[in-house]
Amino acid sequence: MTASPASEPLQWTDLDKRAVDTIRALAMDAVENTGNGHPGTAMSLAPAAYMLFQRLMRYDPADPDWSGRDRFVLSAGHTSLTLYIQLFYAGLLDLDDLKHFRQWGSRTPGHPEHGHTPGVETTTGPLGQGIGNAVGMAMAARRERGLLDPEAALGGSPFDHRVFTIVSDGDIEEGISHEASALAAHQKLGNLVALYDDNLISIEDDTTIAKSEDVGARYEAYGWHVQTVEWRRSEDYVEDVEALWSAYQTALAETDRPSLIVLKTIIAWPAPNAQNTGKSHGSALGADEVASTKEILGFDPAKSFVVEKDVLAHVRQLRERGAALHHEWDKAYKAWRSANPERTQLHDRMRERRLPDGWTERIPSFEAGKDVATRKASGAVISALAPVLPELWGGSADLAESNNTTPDGEPSFVPPEYATKEFPGDWYGRVLHFGIREHGMGAILNGIALHGGTRPYGATFLVFSDYMRPSVRLAALMKLPVIYVWTHDSVGLGEDGPTHQPVEHLAALRAIPGLEVIRPGDANEAAAAWQFALSRPNAPKGLALTRQNLPTFDRSEGSGFAPASEVGKGGYVLVDAPGDGLPDVVLIATGSELQLAVAAREQLAAEGIGARVVSMPCVEWFDDQDQAYRDTVLPPAVRARVCVEAGIAQPWHRFAGDKGKIVSLEHFGASADYKTLFREFGFTADSVAQAARESLAATRG
Amino acid sequence: MTASPASEPLQWTDLDKRAVDTIRALAMDAVENTGNGHPGTAMSLAPAAYMLFQRLMRYDPADPDWSGRDRFVLSAGHTSLTLYIQLFYAGLLDLDDLKHFRQWGSRTPGHPEHGHTPGVETTTGPLGQGIGNAVGMAMAARRERGLLDPEAALGGSPFDHRVFTIVSDGDIEEGISHEASALAAHQKLGNLVALYDDNLISIEDDTTIAKSEDVGARYEAYGWHVQTVEWRRSEDYVEDVEALWSAYQTALAETDRPSLIVLKTIIAWPAPNAQNTGKSHGSALGADEVASTKEILGFDPAKSFVVEKDVLAHVRQLRERGAALHHEWDKAYKAWRSANPERTQLHDRMRERRLPDGWTERIPSFEAGKDVATRKASGAVISALAPVLPELWGGSADLAESNNTTPDGEPSFVPPEYATKEFPGDWYGRVLHFGIREHGMGAILNGIALHGGTRPYGATFLVFSDYMRPSVRLAALMKLPVIYVWTHDSVGLGEDGPTHQPVEHLAALRAIPGLEVIRPGDANEAAAAWQFALSRPNAPKGLALTRQNLPTFDRSEGSGFAPASEVGKGGYVLVDAPGDGLPDVVLIATGSELQLAVAAREQLAAEGIGARVVSMPCVEWFDDQDQAYRDTVLPPAVRARVCVEAGIAQPWHRFAGDKGKIVSLEHFGASADYKTLFREFGFTADSVAQAARESLAATRG
Repeated sequence: MTASPASEPLQWTDLDKRAVDTIRALAMDAVENTGNGHPGTAMSLAPAAYMLFQRLMRYDPADPDWSGRDRFVLSAGHTSLTLYIQLFYAGLLDLDDLKHFRQWGSRTPGHPEHGHTPGVETTTGPLGQGIGNAVGMAMAARRERGLLDPEAALGGSPFDHRVFTIVSDGDIEEGISHEASALAAHQKLGNLVALYDDNLISIEDDTTIAKSEDVGARYEAYGWHVQTVEWRRSEDYVEDVEALWSAYQTALAETDRPSLIVLKTIIAWPAPNAQNTGKSHGSALGADEVASTKEILGFDPAKSFVVEKDVLAHVRQLRERGAALHHEWDKAYKAWRSANPERTQLHDRMRERRLPDGWTERIPSFEAGKDVATRKASGAVISALAPVLPELWGGSADLAESNNTTPDGEPSFVPPEYATKEFPGDWYGRVLHFGIREHGMGAILNGIALHGGTRPYGATFLVFSDYMRPSVRLAALMKLPVIYVWTHDSVGLGEDGPTHQPVEHLAALRAIPGLEVIRPGDANEAAAAWQFALSRPNAPKGLALTRQNLPTFDRSEGSGFAPASEVGKGGYVLVDAPGDGLPDVVLIATGSELQLAVAAREQLAAEGIGARVVSMPCVEWFDDQDQAYRDTVLPPAVRARVCVEAGIAQPWHRFAGDKGKIVSLEHFGASADYKTLFREFGFTADSVAQAARESLAATRG
Repeated sequence: MTASPASEPLQWTDLDKRAVDTIRALAMDAVENTGNGHPGTAMSLAPAAYMLFQRLMRYDPADPDWSGRDRFVLSAGHTSLTLYIQLFYAGLLDLDDLKHFRQWGSRTPGHPEHGHTPGVETTTGPLGQGIGNAVGMAMAARRERGLLDPEAALGGSPFDHRVFTIVSDGDIEEGISHEASALAAHQKLGNLVALYDDNLISIEDDTTIAKSEDVGARYEAYGWHVQTVEWRRSEDYVEDVEALWSAYQTALAETDRPSLIVLKTIIAWPAPNAQNTGKSHGSALGADEVASTKEILGFDPAKSFVVEKDVLAHVRQLRERGAALHHEWDKAYKAWRSANPERTQLHDRMRERRLPDGWTERIPSFEAGKDVATRKASGAVISALAPVLPELWGGSADLAESNNTTPDGEPSFVPPEYATKEFPGDWYGRVLHFGIREHGMGAILNGIALHGGTRPYGATFLVFSDYMRPSVRLAALMKLPVIYVWTHDSVGLGEDGPTHQPVEHLAALRAIPGLEVIRPGDANEAAAAWQFALSRPNAPKGLALTRQNLPTFDRSEGSGFAPASEVGKGGYVLVDAPGDGLPDVVLIATGSELQLAVAAREQLAAEGIGARVVSMPCVEWFDDQDQAYRDTVLPPAVRARVCVEAGIAQPWHRFAGDKGKIVSLEHFGASADYKTLFREFGFTADSVAQAARESLAATRG
């Protein structure tokens, strides 16, 4: 059944033509009415988008979250009207939404926002992200099928569906498109179809000024199936919908390669003056030009936001089409459910992002006294959870062994001919190999999370979080349950030197609203970090993990040390000052520096100074606690405080306060063994103790 | 004269072969001695690097900064030994440096660091950056030639030289390589030669697991000239140096296209067990394997760091070769100087990064009372300075009109056939069009600055600083005089919505050590920002500029407002509280929020509260002032403070202190007109005044 239903010849009546022209008029009206926006591409892409939504995609407006739907990703997010008008035709938006385009509180913001507008599969706008999301969705579809219905013939499973994306020159020029597209071909994503709107115009007008690559040849070099549909013919512009339809059909028949259709359009066609100009890309056309264009289209130039009744009735037939597709799919889906009771349980659990009973029992605990790097502890957790959490999958951007992200004995997700001696794998495998493509990885992780079902993680060195930062920001904006495994989290990585040593990264990542950065202080905190990260699928999490070994604290009863389960509160008293009453000073630390605070506490105790050690693995989680709890951990009355973290001080001033001290690193690192670096850069128990004395003196001064 | 001298047939004696094998032994020894590092690629690239330094490049070890030299960029920075051993052969490093590889204080850190080790042209390691730097250097060479010697025939000017780079799989997979390489072909950089070490191995071992693109075809799609040199022949590995030489010769003959040589090597060859493995990429081979390899090479397995006298004498002949090349060049250079007295002045000034007398007089000042966006003021400054600062050039990543970065009437830097109606241009033009390639832009700007001579700037929206962040970090690490023009610097950009609105970016950029972020508060501060940014070529600067109009403050004598020249101090009293003595409260603001502080001051004055307004356009410059000055601006005795900035609070806690308040934005923005957003998000004079009252109350509480 479930190949996208598109094998019939194209039916394209005058009503379709008018519906397409109405898109152009609405796009002009929406921008004109608000006074700003991007009309041109919405006009020229009208037939292509209409064909997708009305004829090609398996899509049911009555259930935009239907798991069996084809996905549509508007990588060229600036032409949000291309999508909004299709959603209006589908009945998910109404005309009033288009009238409030780009206005406060509307469902039609400047760029499409997932979670804000029904039917928007992903938030796009930052260029190149969408194509990466689409690749991730196509990968997720395969992994989900592998978990739930691997025996079905291709196209014969309710879990088969396609991913369509529209990309623009901006997407094509951005480096992330290279990363994602190279990997898409490598993964033989036959379920992915990209339409490239090759209109020769970007914001600086004629793209000739900056671009001369042969995009089709480039995509063929990756291994894509490439077709060109030429609407710009010598002196004439012919919107040959049959040619486009035929290209779509050929693309759908490709099962082994992603497909690129290069569609040569004229932006803002048929606006008499604005067509083929950079202005029409991002500005209102002006009342006169809108009127002239409407005349050309045979519309009343005096009226705005007009949708003829017969046109509306025609396009709203999408509801019947969608219901029929959904009904057909439901039959196959129900048959699958009754034939697969166990997999049905897994499926339902995954859909709800519910973890199985007892899963936390699998999480290893680490013996006190043994030194373990938190990246190693993280790796042990991943291996331990793999058998009970089949939905958890991921990998690294070519640093698997360093990031400790490969669960024991699990196959790689790779076409069989690309499996290697080192990494056996198969079509439905589990371990992802992103290559040296951090940015592509970031967008792909978002696509996997957006697809739903599985839970992805991706890894690189913390310093290279910079390479994927635009995708991390979008994960935060969309509140996606993506987990980043960022190892080698400080100068403690040693000899690779300043290019590889994060200094500002913890601060810069904590700066992103909604991203939760977790930097565990020992192996058991690392295990707890995974537990809470998985339990809270409401936001992306970044785990910052050490390369070097750390002591594992003795947290047994009577040790005076709190259990690692306290990590869920973000910050907690790891070990209090000796004796009763308030401590003299509070030492706040994260990650590899937690041991320095513990050692400094001992030094200070010998001098009669009572120091409390607060472990603060996740500032965001601590901020989420109520004031009473936070005041218990950081008593307002104790102004003597030391924060210690092998990174810049910026995030810690608010915890240190006027009287506190911060042991931080305000410059780039250096190439040497990590013990030397920690000593030379002042990350020692002595310097923490000294900072405590100074802070105490300040409170008394 | 000055084409790279390489037209003779290859002389390759047994001494050369031994010198190459000695590189392999030294690479193994250096890694073995330190216990970590990357030996494999240094071994297999030994002949290619040796040929470059010893035979091909115009290079004089006696003067590694010779402006006429060919540049060498090791984009694959992890194989730093590839470079260090050539620098040792050149006499710029000694054997002791190799013995202290990756150790504290050595000249041979894990990855090459420009400014730290003589002869290192750029800091590499983060993959893909080097190829972007090389593209920038090749562009800078052309621009410099255009300024100084445009009439000379190609190859006939002392300003003609070449840029060579070695790239690895990592560089090729990273998105930035796509951006930089597409632009390199577009710019027809015939002076650029890239050697791609196609060894089929990356850290996750066999690259087959993640990579199947046809790299040569991809580069041909960009428009590069591509050759393949196959050393891996069926069962045998033949280091055919003649074939490589011939490929280099062909590449040098290309004047219209950048050249890619795909060199198919075996990593760590001829190590019997380690060759062709991922382990040999990044780990010491182990004593036994090193010994076995030395035996294969005919070296004493018991000895380390051995360089035979005849080998050393042979390779050190590079000094004579270099002196001869330099001498020949000097003749042409002197002839050019005497024939071009005016250009000689410009040349000397550019080399010293000295600005011409009186240049600041060109900087416009802006009339009080007129509303001007700081991006517009910035554009006016660029246009005003263009005639007197020919070394200043730059452009935008496809946002020129929004970023206001095109100086009036200046031609674009573009091959003539790619000039457009919108942007007339020529081969030696001035306005750069990066395309939608922010990351490539970042690395290219670094390459231009590293090349020396000219002064580059590049522009995009502030939110997209994330796309170029890895390159910005490297600019800061190298202290390069690059200027970023980041406009649309807050939610004040309005309707484009949260994907385009920076919130965390000011904090995240200030977090980078050594980057100077300047956010001017009115048009005259924007002009001053440019003045100080250009005057201080010791670090990269980021200008954060508004899309929306801002009031231009009346700073005339008697106005009570300080002159904009105070911007150079980073923070200053814009206008003090009414009356004498200390103010009751200090309001600290940047950029578009400065006007709110000024308005709040009026409100508070009406209530009898004396508020001082401090403008803080550059926190880094303020931190550079002495304590006495800083205490004058922010009197320690005045604890009532308000910081206001339309971004996250993280950077401001240290200025606000325990009693202060911060008017900030701790969540993503929204799509609406900016006035609505400012009101809805609490950026109003009322809220600043209210925060001041609250802070005052806290100081009294």
